[in-house]
Amino acid sequence: MLSYKDMDQTQLETTLVELKSNYKKFKDQNLNLNMARGKPSCDQMDMTEDFLFKVIEETEKLESKDGTDCRNYGILEGLPEMREIFSEMMEIDSDKILALGNSSLELMFNVISYSMTQLRPGATKPWYEIKDRKFLCPVPGYDRHFAVTEHFGFELVPVQMTENGPDMDEVERLCAADDSIKGIWCVPKYSNPDGYVYDEETTRRLAKMKAADDFLIMWDNTYCVHHLYDDPAKQGHLLDIMALSEEAGYPDRVLVFASTSKMTFANAGIGAIAGSKSNIDWYLSNLKFQTIGPDKMSQLFQAQLIKKAGGVKELMKRHATILRPKFELVLDVLQEELGEFNIADWHKPLGGYFISVNLQPGTAKQVVAMCKDAGVILTGAGATYPYNKDPHDSNIRIAPSYPTIKELETAIRVFCTCAKIAAVENYLSQ
Amino acid sequence: MLSYKDMDQTQLETTLVELKSNYKKFKDQNLNLNMARGKPSCDQMDMTEDFLFKVIEETEKLESKDGTDCRNYGILEGLPEMREIFSEMMEIDSDKILALGNSSLELMFNVISYSMTQLRPGATKPWYEIKDRKFLCPVPGYDRHFAVTEHFGFELVPVQMTENGPDMDEVERLCAADDSIKGIWCVPKYSNPDGYVYDEETTRRLAKMKAADDFLIMWDNTYCVHHLYDDPAKQGHLLDIMALSEEAGYPDRVLVFASTSKMTFANAGIGAIAGSKSNIDWYLSNLKFQTIGPDKMSQLFQAQLIKKAGGVKELMKRHATILRPKFELVLDVLQEELGEFNIADWHKPLGGYFISVNLQPGTAKQVVAMCKDAGVILTGAGATYPYNKDPHDSNIRIAPSYPTIKELETAIRVFCTCAKIAAVENYLSQ
Repeated sequence: MLSYKDMDQTQLETTLVELKSNYKKFKDQNLNLNMARGKPSCDQMDMTEDFLFKVIEETEKLESKDGTDCRNYGILEGLPEMREIFSEMMEIDSDKILALGNSSLELMFNVISYSMTQLRPGATKPWYEIKDRKFLCPVPGYDRHFAVTEHFGFELVPVQMTENGPDMDEVERLCAADDSIKGIWCVPKYSNPDGYVYDEETTRRLAKMKAADDFLIMWDNTYCVHHLYDDPAKQGHLLDIMALSEEAGYPDRVLVFASTSKMTFANAGIGAIAGSKSNIDWYLSNLKFQTIGPDKMSQLFQAQLIKKAGGVKELMKRHATILRPKFELVLDVLQEELGEFNIADWHKPLGGYFISVNLQPGTAKQVVAMCKDAGVILTGAGATYPYNKDPHDSNIRIAPSYPTIKELETAIRVFCTCAKIAAVENYLSQ
Repeated sequence: MLSYKDMDQTQLETTLVELKSNYKKFKDQNLNLNMARGKPSCDQMDMTEDFLFKVIEETEKLESKDGTDCRNYGILEGLPEMREIFSEMMEIDSDKILALGNSSLELMFNVISYSMTQLRPGATKPWYEIKDRKFLCPVPGYDRHFAVTEHFGFELVPVQMTENGPDMDEVERLCAADDSIKGIWCVPKYSNPDGYVYDEETTRRLAKMKAADDFLIMWDNTYCVHHLYDDPAKQGHLLDIMALSEEAGYPDRVLVFASTSKMTFANAGIGAIAGSKSNIDWYLSNLKFQTIGPDKMSQLFQAQLIKKAGGVKELMKRHATILRPKFELVLDVLQEELGEFNIADWHKPLGGYFISVNLQPGTAKQVVAMCKDAGVILTGAGATYPYNKDPHDSNIRIAPSYPTIKELETAIRVFCTCAKIAAVENYLSQ
C-alpha cells in the first residue's frame, strides 16, 4: 500500500473522498461512545460486586484481624489486613504503608498541600515561600498529576518520556542546577499514557541524582499489579526505589502511591501511601488534624473481597481477562488501519489502562474534534501535557477499558478514519 | 448536709479519710473504663449494623436514584439521596450541600487548608500571607477544632461561652477592631462540651456583625438532630444563620457542617458541607484537584440504611433511647454526689454527646489524674481550651455514650469521689 507521503495530489484527493464517505457513514450512526477516561468497565465491576456481596453475606462481625471494631473511631494508619494487601502489591513492608481514603489522588494532593504550609522532611521552608517553585512533568503524562501542582502555583517543567522512563540526562541537568525544582511526577510501571516501564538505570539515577534537599519523587505506582498478561516475562519489572534512595543517602526522597480503585471499585476503593519512617510520621503528623481515621468498614470489606477472589494475583488475572481483548483489539485495528501509512506510532503496553498514539504533528486537535462530531469522545488533545499544550499537537490517549468490545471496535475505527483524513488533508495543504 | 466550705478542719479531715477509703475500694477493682471521647456505643452500632445488612440484602443494583453507577468514578458533589437527607437534617436546600468523605472534620480541615493557599470568597490574600492570623475559640470548646487552626499557625483567641452562645459583646469588640481575625469555631446546637444552644440574638449578631471581609463562621452543626428527648419543647431551636448572613449582606460568611458519624457508623459515616453558591463553588474548585469523587457506595448504603430505619427522626429516636438513660444516670449521680457540696456545676444538656462539669478551680488536672489511677479515663483536663490551657483548671468534659450503663455508674462515682477528695484537699490547704 502506498504511504500518504508518497502519493501525488490526485491520489491524495481520491483517498480523501473515500475517507470522508466512510466518516459520513459513521456520523450517520449517531454514535455515543467514550474512550476518554480510564474507567473500569461494568463487566469488571459486576465481577467484584459478586465477590463483595458474597463476602458481606459471610461477615459475622465487622472486626479487623487485630480485634478493632471497624464501626467505630480510630486506627489512623488503616486496617492491618489492608496494609498487608498493599504490602504484597507494592513490595514494601506494611509498616511503611498507610491505607487511607477512597483514592490515591487525594493522598498525592495532600502531600503537596501539606508541604505548602508545613515543613516536610529535608525542607527549610514551606513550599508556599518558594516563589519560583517548579515540578518536573514527564510528557506525555497524567493530567490530574500536573493539575495538582499547577493548582498550588508550581511552574510545570516538561521532560520528555522515553521507553525507559523520563529523559534522565535532562532531569539530572535541571535538578542539579535549580533547588526550586521540588519534585517529579512518575507513573513508573505501565506509564500513563504510554504504558512504558521505568528501567533499572532510570530508577537508580532518580534515586541518587543531585537535587534539592526536599526534592520529592511522586512515585505513583497505581498500575503495579495491573498486568495484561499472566506471563512474568510479559510483565514490567521495577526496582525498589525506596531502598535505592535510602542507599544513596536520600531516604525521604520518595513517596509511593497505589490504590484498589481499579481492583475493587473505582471511587470506592482504598488508597495507599508508602515511604520512609520519617515521611510516614510526617504524613500522619498532618493527617491527625484532618481526620480521626479512615473508613475501616470499607477497608474490611475490600480486604475480604480480595481474599475471596483468591488474592491479588487471581483477582488481577480476572481483570486482565476482560481488559486484554480490548487492548489487543485496539492495537490490531491501529495496525490494520494506520500501520502501513506511516502517519502514526504507538507502543504496545503490557499493562495499565491506556494506549498512547502519536499522530502526524498538527493533527491531534482536529482528530479529537472530528471524533467528537461523530459521537466518539476521546481525552482532549493536549491533556497529556502541562497547561494542556502539546507542542506538536500530536499525542492522543486512548482508554479502551470502559466500552464493550463491539463499541470499542466502532470507536477505534472512527478514530483511525479521522486520523487518516487529518493526515491526508495535512499533506494536501503542504 | 454540710458544704465543704462550711466544715472546720477536723470535719474536713474526717471526710477526707472516708473519701480516700472509698477511692481505694474503687482502685482495688482494677477498673478499665473510658469516658474520654464521644464514641457511639456498641449497642448503637449493633442497631445500625442490623439495618445495614438488611439494606444490602435487599440491594439489587448499586445505582443511585439518578441512575449513577455507584461503583464507578464521578459525582464530585455526592449522591442526590445523601444530599437530600442532609437537607432534611440541616434545614438547608440540597443544592447548597455537598456530601463527601467519611467525616466532617476533614471538610473543616480542608476549608482552612484551602484558604491558606487559595483566595476564598471575600479574601484579598491567601491566609498564609496574614502573618498575625487569628481564630476565635469559644471556651470551653472542641479540642479538634482548635487544633486545626493551631496547626495552620493561627493565634487562638478564647472567648467565653455562655448558655446562649459565645459572649457576643466580646466577639463583636474583637472582630470590629482586628481584620486579622479570620473566623470563629461554633457548635451551635448542643455545644461541645456544655450542650448549650445558640439563642436567636447570638445567631443574629454573628450574622450581621462587623468583621473582616473574609471572616468565616465555622458552623459545625454536628448535633443538629441528636436530641435526647422526642418532645419538640425539649429540643434546641436554632435560627438559619446562612439566611441571616445573606440578609445582612455577608452571604459567604458561613459554612455549615454535619455528618452521619453518630447516626450510622463513626468513621464510616458521611460528612457534609453547606454554604452559599459561591462558597460551594469555591470548595469544589479546590476539591476537583483533590479527588475524582467520594465513595458513592458508602453513601448509597447509608442513605438506604437511614430510609430503612424510618428516616432521620425515627433513627435518632432509636439512638436517644440508648443515650438518654446514660445522660440521665450521669446527671442523677452528679446531683446526688456533688449537688449539695457546692463544689461543681454543670448544665443539663438536651442533646449532643457531652456533659461539661466545672469543678473547684485548680482541681481538674488532679481529678483527671486520680481517675486515671483508678482506671477511669477522662478527656484530659484543659482539652476544652486552646493550647490545652484552662486558666481555672476547672473544666472537665464527660462523654457518657460509650460505656454500658453499669460501667458508666461506676465511672461517674469514681469521678465524683475524686472531685470530692480534690475539693476537700483544696479547702484543707487554704
